[in-house]
Amino acid sequence: MRQNMVLFNIHLKLNSYSHYDCTQMKRVASGISPVIAIDKRKRQFLYKQVYESYRQAIVEGRLAPGQRVPSTRVAAMELGISRIPVLDAYAQLLAEGYFESRVGSGTVVSRSLPDRAIPLRAASAPSPSASGGRRPVAKRCSALPSGGDLYRRRGRGAFAVGQVAFDHFPFQVWNRLVTRYSRRMRAGGLDYGDAMGLPDLRDAIASHLRTARGLHCQAEQILVVSGSQQGLELACRVLLDAGDRVWMEEPGYSFARSVFTSNDCRIVPVPVDSEGLDVASGIRQCRRARAAVVTPSHQYPLGATMSASRRLQLLDWAAKNEAWIIEDDYDSEHRYEGLPATSLQGMDRNSRVVYVGTLSKVLFPSLRLGYVVAPLDLVERFRAVRLAMDICPPTLFQNVLADFIREGHFSRHIRRMRTLYAERRSVLIESLRRELGSVAELSGGQAGMHLAILMNGIDDRVTADRAERVRLWLTPLSPAYHRSENARTGFILGLGSVPVQDIPDAVRKLGTILHGK
Amino acid sequence: MRQNMVLFNIHLKLNSYSHYDCTQMKRVASGISPVIAIDKRKRQFLYKQVYESYRQAIVEGRLAPGQRVPSTRVAAMELGISRIPVLDAYAQLLAEGYFESRVGSGTVVSRSLPDRAIPLRAASAPSPSASGGRRPVAKRCSALPSGGDLYRRRGRGAFAVGQVAFDHFPFQVWNRLVTRYSRRMRAGGLDYGDAMGLPDLRDAIASHLRTARGLHCQAEQILVVSGSQQGLELACRVLLDAGDRVWMEEPGYSFARSVFTSNDCRIVPVPVDSEGLDVASGIRQCRRARAAVVTPSHQYPLGATMSASRRLQLLDWAAKNEAWIIEDDYDSEHRYEGLPATSLQGMDRNSRVVYVGTLSKVLFPSLRLGYVVAPLDLVERFRAVRLAMDICPPTLFQNVLADFIREGHFSRHIRRMRTLYAERRSVLIESLRRELGSVAELSGGQAGMHLAILMNGIDDRVTADRAERVRLWLTPLSPAYHRSENARTGFILGLGSVPVQDIPDAVRKLGTILHGK
Repeated sequence: MRQNMVLFNIHLKLNSYSHYDCTQMKRVASGISPVIAIDKRKRQFLYKQVYESYRQAIVEGRLAPGQRVPSTRVAAMELGISRIPVLDAYAQLLAEGYFESRVGSGTVVSRSLPDRAIPLRAASAPSPSASGGRRPVAKRCSALPSGGDLYRRRGRGAFAVGQVAFDHFPFQVWNRLVTRYSRRMRAGGLDYGDAMGLPDLRDAIASHLRTARGLHCQAEQILVVSGSQQGLELACRVLLDAGDRVWMEEPGYSFARSVFTSNDCRIVPVPVDSEGLDVASGIRQCRRARAAVVTPSHQYPLGATMSASRRLQLLDWAAKNEAWIIEDDYDSEHRYEGLPATSLQGMDRNSRVVYVGTLSKVLFPSLRLGYVVAPLDLVERFRAVRLAMDICPPTLFQNVLADFIREGHFSRHIRRMRTLYAERRSVLIESLRRELGSVAELSGGQAGMHLAILMNGIDDRVTADRAERVRLWLTPLSPAYHRSENARTGFILGLGSVPVQDIPDAVRKLGTILHGK
Repeated sequence: MRQNMVLFNIHLKLNSYSHYDCTQMKRVASGISPVIAIDKRKRQFLYKQVYESYRQAIVEGRLAPGQRVPSTRVAAMELGISRIPVLDAYAQLLAEGYFESRVGSGTVVSRSLPDRAIPLRAASAPSPSASGGRRPVAKRCSALPSGGDLYRRRGRGAFAVGQVAFDHFPFQVWNRLVTRYSRRMRAGGLDYGDAMGLPDLRDAIASHLRTARGLHCQAEQILVVSGSQQGLELACRVLLDAGDRVWMEEPGYSFARSVFTSNDCRIVPVPVDSEGLDVASGIRQCRRARAAVVTPSHQYPLGATMSASRRLQLLDWAAKNEAWIIEDDYDSEHRYEGLPATSLQGMDRNSRVVYVGTLSKVLFPSLRLGYVVAPLDLVERFRAVRLAMDICPPTLFQNVLADFIREGHFSRHIRRMRTLYAERRSVLIESLRRELGSVAELSGGQAGMHLAILMNGIDDRVTADRAERVRLWLTPLSPAYHRSENARTGFILGLGSVPVQDIPDAVRKLGTILHGK
């Protein structure tokens, strides 16, 4: 390598006075001797190497404003290369303003460059990576958890939350559709799509929601988003200003809280009980809140289904106070006893509900597709904010999903998964009763892909850390509380990705960890 | 249809007093006679029909709290169906709290439901869709444009901005990779991915950026996002609080402004000239701004490349004032004369630059992939905000793209497109000079996939509307100005999706429209 490198010490000529603006010129310290390194074996074009070397030397202050550089002829000679790459490099440096050229004074480093400001600080300022500490950022993002509960337990199986029965996904059908659309991809499919999503998919979603979830909606109210997280973000940005107060379930989904706190909203934590959100408590605490964020079908994490009475109270409050209800219906399709509870949106006669859903639970999380059902008069504002956030959803999987729904694979998959999860759920409940019957209180097993166990007198975070070491993925309950003084301890147990035959063993493991404490 | 419908008038029995809480009971108006409709031919299960009919009647106030409902036996008889679906429906209505059942008093509509609050308002409140007007939403989203410039001209061809040479995309290679990963998709690929993006792709992007754009970066600084729009959003949310002031180019990219205004930041419009952003003017207007958003490689829309002097001034200002520079390098790969200008990020020695890039221009927009290069000490905060915004990017196309880059298809495609666009560009410039030489001033043809023409004394929006009628897609220049008093008129002409042989004709058409005015 070495023998192929040409090191070239630029001859410094102090042009201490120019006949132009001699008052502004400064003497350039003569000790600095920048080195231009050219490696002929490198694949990088020679002209680029010459250009880069000069640019670096200037940026780093090794060449100062007004300093003369050798002529292209001299430089080519000293570097032992042809003059053409040097001419090209000089042209580029002139064009970009690093060099300037004046009749009679040759080529010099541009005199309009700020004088030595950068290198002085660069040398003295500690590199942010080396110093270790983080420089201050926006206050609104300072308090966000860095990974959060979702990423805390990353293994698959018992009892990771938010995971689905990955092995039971109909890969073959899905891949056939992916191939179909990938092959059909033509020029037209490459352009930006509609910010609201693909019309075919919006049709299919609207029709599914009307049938399966009792929504009152048309395709034009549907926005395709990347999941319920983006759905909440979107709703927040359209409906709430900085400083606005918002009711949130206590305990609740901490990722949902992140959306509202990072948008400068103020959280009013409203307790939940077996009937869901305690609306009367919300009214007592803050009647004038601008919105309520609720999971009425299956409260996260405690699992209650919001009662009819509470639903009507909530709708009533929203209508009277011109407040908004953001309904997060994240896993409503998986209900095991009776019908899935109807959506709040379907009960609302005043268009006060924004409905948010996701396909992460019924299909799979890495698909990154979900939807928002916006009130008809606000559709245009939702569209505007979505455009500002990230323009539009990607196209291919929207096509695939539209066909997957229309051809009946979607309902079939939901039905199959409901049976599968129902079995896992009943084995889990049975095992928990046998193993922890007296010490743990079970909460919310009628629906969804998780349930909660409440236990007194434990440190659930520490226990979760301990469980991780034996590859048991526990999500502690206490971080689901906004105020630590409200916090109860326990665990949220996901049943989505744990095979039924593994459940009794996993629960025994859990028992050992808890009893061993 | 009719003969299959069973209409069933519920026998209203006024249970005016219960032996429980007679003081709270109210008389129910006797004129209301809710109708339960069952259609035996409908595919919906009978129990669901019974359930829905009762629920609707209650929600709409046709059945009042405390009102008695017929026994399951009677209901089944009158509906002419078996008792089982009625039992199931009643069980569900009891479980959800619509009904309550007390020994001795049979089944009644739940007395805890709010009394008739909903139907009264539902009847009187105008439906938001019917009333036409929009209800007020958050102030921060009120001013956002609803479609904006990007969506204004939606045809393909001359001179739509933001479009690429769709026909020249290497569909075959791309589809082979899509099929490869789609077939390989296993359980593991379905779960949430890393919020930062796929490690392989981050590696490939970092290496591309170091080589092609002169960035100082490692893979761990890369965040995969859905495009430069989400990149800007992310940077704004991490770095700026509500009320913070931010320098933005005047004229500039209106979608970028949307990000900052909808996040409650205050825009300081800083003029651009042939050297890019006028840093001295920014300092005069507001030295203490928290950030500057710039497009140094190819200013949008006027096309200047930021000069070395301005670059160093800007870096200097940021370092001195602990401000941030958000570098939007949206189409830097397409430069036709000399080397692409190096990135600001690569010149920065104080880690003050957040670099934002997109694949919408070098690959295609509906892919929805881009990247952010965050300063090393802030990576963790960028990750936290990204999680709060939408968890993580979708997986499949990240795999495809990583291979597309690693296998050399990416650089090959960029090189091919550079030649193609260079030809289109020179034909466009030539045609414009011939057709509009004296009336239009050309701006920014050295790089990128668009150029601007400045023209005095026209209404560019009206002209763009007129051009649309003859399928010529003009983007007016004046909306690119934040302050209308600064606005110059003209057009931004995209050259990405117009075949070279169509350009002379399209320019003639443009000439006719302009001269015909």
